[in-house]
Amino acid sequence: MQTELSKQLGVEHALFGFTPFPAVAAAISRAGGFGVLGAVRYTAPDDLKRDLDWVDAHVDGRPYGLDVVMPAKKVEGVTEADVEAMIPEGHRQFVRDTLAEYGVPELAEGDASGWRITGWMEQVARSQLDVAFEYPIRLLANALGSPPADVVERAHAQGALVAALAGSARHARKHQEAGIDIVVAQGYEAGGHTGEIASMVLTPEVVDAVAPLPVLAAGGIGSGQQVAAALALGAQGVWLGSIWLTTTEAELPSPVLVRKLLAAGSGDTVRSRALTGKPARQLRTAWTDVWDDPDGPGALPMPLQGLLVAEAITRIQKYEVDPLLGTPVGQIVGRMTSERSVQAVVDDLTRGFEKAVDRINRIAGRSRQ
Amino acid sequence: MQTELSKQLGVEHALFGFTPFPAVAAAISRAGGFGVLGAVRYTAPDDLKRDLDWVDAHVDGRPYGLDVVMPAKKVEGVTEADVEAMIPEGHRQFVRDTLAEYGVPELAEGDASGWRITGWMEQVARSQLDVAFEYPIRLLANALGSPPADVVERAHAQGALVAALAGSARHARKHQEAGIDIVVAQGYEAGGHTGEIASMVLTPEVVDAVAPLPVLAAGGIGSGQQVAAALALGAQGVWLGSIWLTTTEAELPSPVLVRKLLAAGSGDTVRSRALTGKPARQLRTAWTDVWDDPDGPGALPMPLQGLLVAEAITRIQKYEVDPLLGTPVGQIVGRMTSERSVQAVVDDLTRGFEKAVDRINRIAGRSRQ
Repeated sequence: MQTELSKQLGVEHALFGFTPFPAVAAAISRAGGFGVLGAVRYTAPDDLKRDLDWVDAHVDGRPYGLDVVMPAKKVEGVTEADVEAMIPEGHRQFVRDTLAEYGVPELAEGDASGWRITGWMEQVARSQLDVAFEYPIRLLANALGSPPADVVERAHAQGALVAALAGSARHARKHQEAGIDIVVAQGYEAGGHTGEIASMVLTPEVVDAVAPLPVLAAGGIGSGQQVAAALALGAQGVWLGSIWLTTTEAELPSPVLVRKLLAAGSGDTVRSRALTGKPARQLRTAWTDVWDDPDGPGALPMPLQGLLVAEAITRIQKYEVDPLLGTPVGQIVGRMTSERSVQAVVDDLTRGFEKAVDRINRIAGRSRQ
Repeated sequence: MQTELSKQLGVEHALFGFTPFPAVAAAISRAGGFGVLGAVRYTAPDDLKRDLDWVDAHVDGRPYGLDVVMPAKKVEGVTEADVEAMIPEGHRQFVRDTLAEYGVPELAEGDASGWRITGWMEQVARSQLDVAFEYPIRLLANALGSPPADVVERAHAQGALVAALAGSARHARKHQEAGIDIVVAQGYEAGGHTGEIASMVLTPEVVDAVAPLPVLAAGGIGSGQQVAAALALGAQGVWLGSIWLTTTEAELPSPVLVRKLLAAGSGDTVRSRALTGKPARQLRTAWTDVWDDPDGPGALPMPLQGLLVAEAITRIQKYEVDPLLGTPVGQIVGRMTSERSVQAVVDDLTRGFEKAVDRINRIAGRSRQ
């Protein structure tokens, strides 16, 4: 499964795997794909350094990348405390009431809220980049708009390609104008922040909009058939995130969450503002329901909502409060029915791709060579 | 582009085209696809007879089909007047106020409201079937649940296959249990009534759920690349509706509407209950906005909403009231940028399919024979 982009990056398969877990990222690269470590959960540069050390030591010399969340617009001198002050008390009370209703215990003294908004702020992203550029990363992806011009320049100077996510052709063209190298076209069915245009429509539209820039298709891809479909739509590769959550290498915070993911069907996700303030696809839970309820207070805009709910999410995860416990995940969660190794997932994707190509050739009246 | 199903039906391409316009249906069949005439707009059996006469005389002996809207559950003795009586006065006033706000003229005396709910009622669908079975239709599709058992039996006795639309694997299995022959898996991005699962995820899920029944992919398909993608996902053919709306053979009620369709992008549709009471994808207009507004009265459930707005829609269409004027259409409306003949659309689909197969073979490292 070779495209111009996969050849350029020197990987065997045009499969790009995004994951917050170092062991998964390294395993994807070892399996012949391109592992991309998500940096948003790292607040301390040293933690990122430790994990990049680990990844670099475990990819057997294969290429890998990093995904940061960096807004193109610089917000000067705004601290987390400034953002905290903008949260209405009614919303804070609603969080307390909801947690009380479900009997969610308090954190023990000294327990940090692990899920912080700070990873979303430019200052933090820049300190992450200072760390990242000490490693031979071949791809720098940005999940939130185009990265700033100086970051693109620095990445290029270090030999890394720059990718950015887009949910519409208009966004994709803005990325192109910002000098990025790869657009990740993220469809409605994807986990995490998504727009409303489905991959079937979005992928070829973005391909046409930014040609000759390469496009990776994201959203709804978890099988070899779906890989073949995305490549038929003009993508130069696929960008998979959700499928790795239930791999044996993943370190999800909770066995209850793994069970919920394995049990969920394709209709059990929702595009909700409950987590960050922007629509993000995730498991539908009692937590998303209360925020999506038209009779409730509704989610605050980004970044307020993320800060508002950070401690609550930490408590829900720590105490595995089943009805409230969720995670960003795409509609392909319906295909995630057993824990498998990353290598088994990659094998399944490549074998399924070959079978889909066989099928399409039979339909086209072309026999297999 | 040949699948088992297209061979069984004796068509050249596994392209199924759904359309309310007889000239489009006949042209699709003549071009080597399978034309399916939508019957929902026919309230008088004689009108359907007239148009089926025309189609039958213009397909050059090629096969064609009919699409009806028939609920599986029989509602005995309920008339349109009974349903009318269930509509709250507040909603009627909201319709009058909205029409007044946009200066929509009244219908002239004697002008019938052309868009009626009656096509949605079983009594009407049955009288349509009595007409339809006088013609050599090869496919009977039902847009609303599985058709009743006696209808399936009658279709089979006449040599017609029965298809039903499904937005989830669960619905698809119910159709299979009801004895239907083909499932049309209708993704989130499709025009008209849709669920929330996108084609990329829905198609293979439905294929797996009802195997060995053949599945047609619907939603997001308007180019040969998208055809190839749908077939890679395991479909035995594609079901296209929106793409025909801007063909030269289509008889849309208004040039303003044609202009709006040609100008619309993939992000200009919305899944709204404004038209029928069930979520249906359509152009986003001021009309969908007022019904989707959380501060408005909200749409009534089906079939009340359809009956409530029938006259209003007729007036909006007749007087081409631009801000309110819409139509069911899928996200591929972004690709509908010029009026083309049905033959030109089919040629584009088949050529694009071949190019996509070439591309996927290059990626798979298989040279073209």
